[in-house]
Amino acid sequence: MKKVTDSHVKEIRSIVKTGRVLTNESDRFSYSFDASFGTYLPDVVIQTKSVEELVALVKLANREKIPVYPRGQATSLSGGPLPVHGGMVFDLSVMNDVLEVYEEDLVAVASPGVLTSNIHKAAEQKGLLYPPDPSSSHVSTIGGNLAENSGGPRGLKYGVTKDYVIGLEVITPEGELIRTGGRTVKNVTGYDLTKLIVGSEGTLGIITKAILRLIPKPPASETVMAIFDSLVDAGKAISKILTSGILPSKMELMDQASIVAVENYEPSGLPRDAEALILIELDGHPLAVKDEAEQVSKVCKEAGAREVRIPQTQAEKEEVWKARKLVSPAIVRIKPTKISEDATVPRSQIPEMCRRLQEIKIKYNIHLVVFGHAGDGNLHPNILADKSDKEEMRRVEQAVAEIFETAIQLGGTLSGEHGIGTMKAPFMEMELGAAGLDMMKRIKLAWDPNHIMNPGKIFPEPGQKLVLSE
Amino acid sequence: MKKVTDSHVKEIRSIVKTGRVLTNESDRFSYSFDASFGTYLPDVVIQTKSVEELVALVKLANREKIPVYPRGQATSLSGGPLPVHGGMVFDLSVMNDVLEVYEEDLVAVASPGVLTSNIHKAAEQKGLLYPPDPSSSHVSTIGGNLAENSGGPRGLKYGVTKDYVIGLEVITPEGELIRTGGRTVKNVTGYDLTKLIVGSEGTLGIITKAILRLIPKPPASETVMAIFDSLVDAGKAISKILTSGILPSKMELMDQASIVAVENYEPSGLPRDAEALILIELDGHPLAVKDEAEQVSKVCKEAGAREVRIPQTQAEKEEVWKARKLVSPAIVRIKPTKISEDATVPRSQIPEMCRRLQEIKIKYNIHLVVFGHAGDGNLHPNILADKSDKEEMRRVEQAVAEIFETAIQLGGTLSGEHGIGTMKAPFMEMELGAAGLDMMKRIKLAWDPNHIMNPGKIFPEPGQKLVLSE
Repeated sequence: MKKVTDSHVKEIRSIVKTGRVLTNESDRFSYSFDASFGTYLPDVVIQTKSVEELVALVKLANREKIPVYPRGQATSLSGGPLPVHGGMVFDLSVMNDVLEVYEEDLVAVASPGVLTSNIHKAAEQKGLLYPPDPSSSHVSTIGGNLAENSGGPRGLKYGVTKDYVIGLEVITPEGELIRTGGRTVKNVTGYDLTKLIVGSEGTLGIITKAILRLIPKPPASETVMAIFDSLVDAGKAISKILTSGILPSKMELMDQASIVAVENYEPSGLPRDAEALILIELDGHPLAVKDEAEQVSKVCKEAGAREVRIPQTQAEKEEVWKARKLVSPAIVRIKPTKISEDATVPRSQIPEMCRRLQEIKIKYNIHLVVFGHAGDGNLHPNILADKSDKEEMRRVEQAVAEIFETAIQLGGTLSGEHGIGTMKAPFMEMELGAAGLDMMKRIKLAWDPNHIMNPGKIFPEPGQKLVLSE
Repeated sequence: MKKVTDSHVKEIRSIVKTGRVLTNESDRFSYSFDASFGTYLPDVVIQTKSVEELVALVKLANREKIPVYPRGQATSLSGGPLPVHGGMVFDLSVMNDVLEVYEEDLVAVASPGVLTSNIHKAAEQKGLLYPPDPSSSHVSTIGGNLAENSGGPRGLKYGVTKDYVIGLEVITPEGELIRTGGRTVKNVTGYDLTKLIVGSEGTLGIITKAILRLIPKPPASETVMAIFDSLVDAGKAISKILTSGILPSKMELMDQASIVAVENYEPSGLPRDAEALILIELDGHPLAVKDEAEQVSKVCKEAGAREVRIPQTQAEKEEVWKARKLVSPAIVRIKPTKISEDATVPRSQIPEMCRRLQEIKIKYNIHLVVFGHAGDGNLHPNILADKSDKEEMRRVEQAVAEIFETAIQLGGTLSGEHGIGTMKAPFMEMELGAAGLDMMKRIKLAWDPNHIMNPGKIFPEPGQKLVLSE
């Protein structure tokens, strides 16, 4: 990997006519971290809305073998935008000028810097819905969501970001501008480059525009909160709902530690003594969701819920969902360092995964909180620690490794929605096998022979291990 | 490309201990065609259920540079399984022994030779649904559906085959057995090889097992038939329904030629004088679909439908959908050779596409019938001709080329669900551009350096043109 020299900076400045080139250390420092671990200073940061300029910069980077790190709002929990080998950071959050909704095509077109919540709003203004709803949607860019294939609670019924991307404009690692897919919902013309690029964590190119599929906005929704004295019963209720013929739009789990943390943070009458809460949202036709909410309540009671609440007003519904949203900010009060995982298991393994997580918590004596998108098997075990306590961080490292191993043993995966990035790269071969990982590497090499595009992500470097205690 | 020699056959026979090796010309002839154009005799046909034996055969083929053609039931309309360079055909329709439904995981596991309709049945027995429903589902294998990323009418609401595949077992072109994805609905661990392989038309490997996502079966459905004196009004009604907040499970169009063909074939009281029919299915909660059917009727009437019928009994509903299914067999009565296209446009362009198709029909003096999945922009213009009439077939060639060009001009794609295969390969660069096609070729080359896996598909050979008149 080469460093950016003064003469490179000169060439970069001659290319970037419409934007900014940042070289001061204080400016560059703002681009050295994300919402995960570690700090890496880039050599130079570029802000431009011009695709033409970005193409020229990628060509320069490829010629000179300088790493390129595309970046949105850097809310990544896996290190996606971290400039681990220095080089150039492209701040694509400035590319927020295109957001068009084509009502008749049920399509939106967006540039990568648009905030995801703005896409939600634009769609809703036309009676439409862009379903993917990562918790960060009010601060994260669609470009980041695309790179990481973000999920969110609505994944249960509606799937993830990838399921709503039908076309892309992409700068390849060698600086060619290509268009994949298009404005049609069905397209089998050659290989599906769209779905290959979405979720490739910025390692196969830079997305400069996306065509997103929208759906009619469901006219009504109902919320159900079920309170359990046993986490295992809650797990069983989730399974029963999913085999009852009803597909909720959301089905979220909060364990006792999450409930207590939220009540300490902002009390709203959640039962501190309950071992688990399930929050369920049903959306669709008003008559359907009313009836389905009753059915879901019945299933929960049969599965052992001690209480089921159905909020009646919009304000009451929002109060319930606010509790779920507060988990992340609330648990940081426990300890300052939060390691948020997203190991995902087949749905039937949710109760067993919960049990194993409790074992890991005790074995390594860590602060572990479990919540997440239980309906699709995507739990978020969060470990709270203090990164200045080296001994504790070593225990955390071991616990994280065991969480990954457990998920894979149960037929699951390292990452449901956060991505591999830097932290999970050492575990890739464990899940994929050497041959599976090799087929991914072949694609990377064929597209990016000089390894300039977001290097240091996804693929483990020789002998790489998880290190949190440095 | 090398031919299979006697010594190869000897080696093949030594590998295939549990299956059959067919070398007689009469046996091989059965494997020389599919439901599209052309006849190509393979050198040898292998039937085995053993993944181990298939792995050894692929290694042999790769070492000796012998083409390998995986094949299901050969219902392909684009030439997917045609052994255009001879070599070995793997008859995977015999690999039909695995079909397991894991109710709690909402997952089915199937081997490639299982008929798609058997997956439908197995899911329904557990109250679940495997949504993809290509018209061929009672005769096509899931392996073929996966290779071609099959669609079908339910694509409108539920998407296509790819949207329901979460894991694969695949033999790579160099004979490595890899597993992609898994049993979780969320998975962002590395590149999405699952969605790359599904729809790659057998050019990137041989699928030996698939993990399919199921959903709860919607408890009720309603059908609406709307009759129009104007094809353009029918197009407008489709747009209005899609922006009314309702997402039908199916929305199919039949033009006058289709209506008349079906009435001549098996009369069921369809209006011969109508310029278009729309058939709509709504599925979901019983109360919801009843109300939505009323709303859809109202929208159709406002858009100029002269009559709207809502069948009341299950038998009446089936009668309506039978008419749609009869279009394909009915139109073959017009002339013996059917060229079934699937050019797809953004939804807003459906009325314009219909208009342009009428122009092409007149310009080239061809028998053109238009029907298909209008709700997702995936029309099926079918040309009826007689392949022994060279002069007519030359006009058909020109008309087909103009249909492709028109779809792309309108922002659409060459293929919505049939695949590229042999016939559409010459048009790939027109849609993708040289750089876009090159990025696909790089993947092919990186995975299959000896070009043994289904060669002659997707990628145009130098100077290749569409020829139907030979």
